[in-house]
Amino acid sequence: MEEIRALPRPRPIKKRARTANPDAQRRLLEAAREVINQQGMSGLRVEDVARCAGLSVGTFYIYFEGKDDLFAKLVVEYTGRLRARVQAAYASRDDLSARFAHGLVAYLDFVEENEKSFLHFRDAGGIETNAGRLSTWAMNQHAEDLKPLLIEGIAAGIFRDEDPDLLAQSLLGLFQHVAGWWIEHREHCSREELQRFALELTGRGLLR
Amino acid sequence: MEEIRALPRPRPIKKRARTANPDAQRRLLEAAREVINQQGMSGLRVEDVARCAGLSVGTFYIYFEGKDDLFAKLVVEYTGRLRARVQAAYASRDDLSARFAHGLVAYLDFVEENEKSFLHFRDAGGIETNAGRLSTWAMNQHAEDLKPLLIEGIAAGIFRDEDPDLLAQSLLGLFQHVAGWWIEHREHCSREELQRFALELTGRGLLR
Repeated sequence: MEEIRALPRPRPIKKRARTANPDAQRRLLEAAREVINQQGMSGLRVEDVARCAGLSVGTFYIYFEGKDDLFAKLVVEYTGRLRARVQAAYASRDDLSARFAHGLVAYLDFVEENEKSFLHFRDAGGIETNAGRLSTWAMNQHAEDLKPLLIEGIAAGIFRDEDPDLLAQSLLGLFQHVAGWWIEHREHCSREELQRFALELTGRGLLR
Repeated sequence: MEEIRALPRPRPIKKRARTANPDAQRRLLEAAREVINQQGMSGLRVEDVARCAGLSVGTFYIYFEGKDDLFAKLVVEYTGRLRARVQAAYASRDDLSARFAHGLVAYLDFVEENEKSFLHFRDAGGIETNAGRLSTWAMNQHAEDLKPLLIEGIAAGIFRDEDPDLLAQSLLGLFQHVAGWWIEHREHCSREELQRFALELTGRGLLR
């Protein structure tokens, strides 16, 4: 006859997480994206993220120092994915203006695919990290990708000879804000109209 | 001999606030600005705001529904002050391009005077209000002021014939981001250089 033993208390997931759940951090990040997309950043509770991941609050704190740390890791992951897409677009074999345009199209594609995350990350970047303010860090990451293109264009005499840092930040600020505005005012114009407008305007600002 | 009575429990301010403290809301808003400037938005606690105002948490909840409501009221007040400054600049008797430039200068002046608030409000606008997302509401307020100027310039054949909503949002997005970036990277260039750059770039985008 089988040995009689008490059942474990009903928190098996926590125990497993501490020992044999290497993908807990990934599950928590996915759950956080889910919870943020549903209810926004403001009022986000660690309890809700843990519950949505099927993990305990204790497990959450194994992987994250708190809500800010969770949010910073989400933004780092999101920024990395967006950068990869835009970098690939910049790296095409076309001329500089076309590469710049490909980058904008890749940016808008990504924003459309991730519109809720985009708005939440844009509006909640005031977290101080070891690399400075989170929103500033993210924009500086994107500027790192855009700046070489601008410097190349200025050196080639195609783009106007302006400060490449200020140029990069201006273009990124413009794209980010107009893309976000459009996400919330889609009735205003089509994606094609938005894209033509942004390329035309920034082209006029850039080209000699 | 004076009547012997128990001393009130040490929360006299709360009692006064409920009855004879009509400026409690103003004091709480001022305290919130102070606390946010010192420690940022993330982790802001109602207790700290109330303590800094010399009022109780109970009094806080007489005037505000919660942290989001407090923050929304701060942004509304801040946006109103910034608009008044920029509106006055737009209303000068100069030509359109000069009025546009005056508006940018007034904007940068205000941002410099309120740099900490500016960064916090920019980065924490993801609060849903009865008027939509707080950051979107604020930018749409500023667009209301800029749009008539753009429409006038387009009608007069001075500015290029582009969609005035997209133009207004683009310019505001660019100004807001570059101003914020400069606040955090002042070593990069002087205020004069920033201003010249922004006017030159946006002028090229705007003018026919």
